[in-house]
Amino acid sequence: MHADRLYTNARLATMRPGATPYGAVEKGAIATYADRIVYAGPEEDAPSAPMVVDLEGRWVTPALIDCHTHLTFAGDRSDEFERRLAGETYTQIAQAGGGIARTVAETRKAGAAELAAGALSRLDTFIEEGVGTIEIKSGYGLTFESELAMLKAARATGLASGMRVMTTLLAAHAIPPEYEGRSAAYIDEVCIPLIREAAREGLADAVDAYCESIAFSPEETRRLFIAAKAVGLPVKLHADQFSDLGGGQLVAEFDGLSADHIEYSSAASIKAMAKSGTVGVLLPGAYYSTGETRKPPVDLMRQAGVPMAVATDANPGSSPLLSILTAANMACTLFGLTVEEALSGITREAARALGLGAEIGTIESGKKADLAVWDIERPAELIQWLGRRPLHGRILGGEWL
Amino acid sequence: MHADRLYTNARLATMRPGATPYGAVEKGAIATYADRIVYAGPEEDAPSAPMVVDLEGRWVTPALIDCHTHLTFAGDRSDEFERRLAGETYTQIAQAGGGIARTVAETRKAGAAELAAGALSRLDTFIEEGVGTIEIKSGYGLTFESELAMLKAARATGLASGMRVMTTLLAAHAIPPEYEGRSAAYIDEVCIPLIREAAREGLADAVDAYCESIAFSPEETRRLFIAAKAVGLPVKLHADQFSDLGGGQLVAEFDGLSADHIEYSSAASIKAMAKSGTVGVLLPGAYYSTGETRKPPVDLMRQAGVPMAVATDANPGSSPLLSILTAANMACTLFGLTVEEALSGITREAARALGLGAEIGTIESGKKADLAVWDIERPAELIQWLGRRPLHGRILGGEWL
Repeated sequence: MHADRLYTNARLATMRPGATPYGAVEKGAIATYADRIVYAGPEEDAPSAPMVVDLEGRWVTPALIDCHTHLTFAGDRSDEFERRLAGETYTQIAQAGGGIARTVAETRKAGAAELAAGALSRLDTFIEEGVGTIEIKSGYGLTFESELAMLKAARATGLASGMRVMTTLLAAHAIPPEYEGRSAAYIDEVCIPLIREAAREGLADAVDAYCESIAFSPEETRRLFIAAKAVGLPVKLHADQFSDLGGGQLVAEFDGLSADHIEYSSAASIKAMAKSGTVGVLLPGAYYSTGETRKPPVDLMRQAGVPMAVATDANPGSSPLLSILTAANMACTLFGLTVEEALSGITREAARALGLGAEIGTIESGKKADLAVWDIERPAELIQWLGRRPLHGRILGGEWL
Repeated sequence: MHADRLYTNARLATMRPGATPYGAVEKGAIATYADRIVYAGPEEDAPSAPMVVDLEGRWVTPALIDCHTHLTFAGDRSDEFERRLAGETYTQIAQAGGGIARTVAETRKAGAAELAAGALSRLDTFIEEGVGTIEIKSGYGLTFESELAMLKAARATGLASGMRVMTTLLAAHAIPPEYEGRSAAYIDEVCIPLIREAAREGLADAVDAYCESIAFSPEETRRLFIAAKAVGLPVKLHADQFSDLGGGQLVAEFDGLSADHIEYSSAASIKAMAKSGTVGVLLPGAYYSTGETRKPPVDLMRQAGVPMAVATDANPGSSPLLSILTAANMACTLFGLTVEEALSGITREAARALGLGAEIGTIESGKKADLAVWDIERPAELIQWLGRRPLHGRILGGEWL
């Protein structure tokens, strides 16, 4: 076994499922070669390496992963937050040109460079919380050109930040004003051509849609998924957030990476997701911020063996949340996840929701050396405390950042 | 008017109640002399000063204030968070030696220096969020010596951090094991002598108690308040959190600075608080973390004209929250405060809850030059976004930190 770096005197939360909680190894060590882990386990069995870093007893987890964000957008909607609390309804705000339509209008005006700059400024807090990989969706352009600009901005954000950014084409996020009442035409004329172009240019790692009575029907979503699969792109879905349209089942049928939100998913959907290995992505920030009361079927997912991830859903409207640790705390406090489930949800299962289950999300030989080093005494401290950022350092692709 | 510094090109959220939301002054300036504000208003009317700082159009608010924390403690209870989520009840955890009894046991073992070091490490996130003044309570020692050590640790934390720390003697936080079943004796033998000693040594700025069926009765609280008033210390109260014992009314009777929690406060209590000018301190972090459903009577307070403050209640058990901006967001999202009420609640009204209403909490001539400078376009951004820390800099007592 060849290693070029060795991290000693560490407590490892490897997050490998198995005998110990958190896959923990006390008195552990990690050896890396280039950007890969070549050893993770008891220090006494570790290989030697020319460079040795003493982690002084600190805990090491996989670098955290946020598998669902809308971090690329232009404009600000804090005035709508203000107006809602002062008594205006969502409908009144939408009728006055607010809501997602406003973000779409402002995003269309912005170029890819401006969009990337905005996303980069919002990445800071993720970096400070030990995030190594983040997904960023398009979905505020809703034109052929503007959706591509959003995907390019997300790619540029990854290059500029050193963060692993996974891009998702979400052209089917909302029906744009030009296509009001003609959602099927929007799918055919804009979304499906976009899938082909994004695949051709290598701009999208996955395709997503918003399947809901106020957005796209299951039938429209199905046509989109067929087009995605035809060019080899995996799919995921905003499913069953406000009503059960069978979104979980639909995305499972296409071996989808994840079904996200899923507050209203039926037992049949959960069963189908278990069978296809589709991850259920919990977004408690949206639940919290919109004052919803229907919780995702956590017990059903546990029983069926559906993997559960947790993400921020960071966006300027329904989930203004820039903290993956806060999302994990909310998943525990509001949805009743155990601490280990929440930490798995922002590491191992989040990796799986991005199709990266073999690459990142646990600390084990063969995976990328994406690690977070913490000034804590127990992994649970990460999730219990809101607002605390006990990060000591991040190692991404074998490099200490 | 004599000024030694002038901050120009600023947008001021002075938080003075009045004509404009947030007491806003666009194109504003602030002049200071030593540690005081000598001018705050339109830039065109500002005095000259030898040192001029261009704030480049940034927003300036009063430095934020957290008026209710338990930041000084020893030990960690993240394992209890973990166990509760895994299915154990509060009672089971308490019977196994957990809960506040555990923090008390660990705090008693720690010296003032260790306690101060712990509190200091937890202050970082408050500093990063623009907090200038923070209250820290005793209440985990519950012996004469250990409560004094906690107050000394809080004072030392203030000196070491440059933060304005207000100390509150909360010996009547819980009944210590030595006094089980003899709460009245604990009040007489420990709490009242402590009030006198803390006053003599200048260690406490206020006296607090926990008036609840599981802690101290209204009659015991009253005896404590009489002792506090006798030595000239103002009082505040953990009131009506889980049941209505008339705590709001009781603390109002003693012209108390604040009644805190107040989920179950009656209309009579609210009326009494309005009359005495007692601030209602909302602690949404505890409400969120303990899964409570009863909300404080916000509408009643508005109608009665009770000032509302918002605080973190930062503590290792029921409110593991180290972010005043998150507390403000929760006050809006969970309790329905307007954004301006929430921002007033962590500035002007929080100052009042600490008896510092004439000194800090707004930007106006004569007050301390405690300011926070922000990279935002609207004050509402501070409250809307969770996890974002757009602080550009803090000015405390006239000094840029």
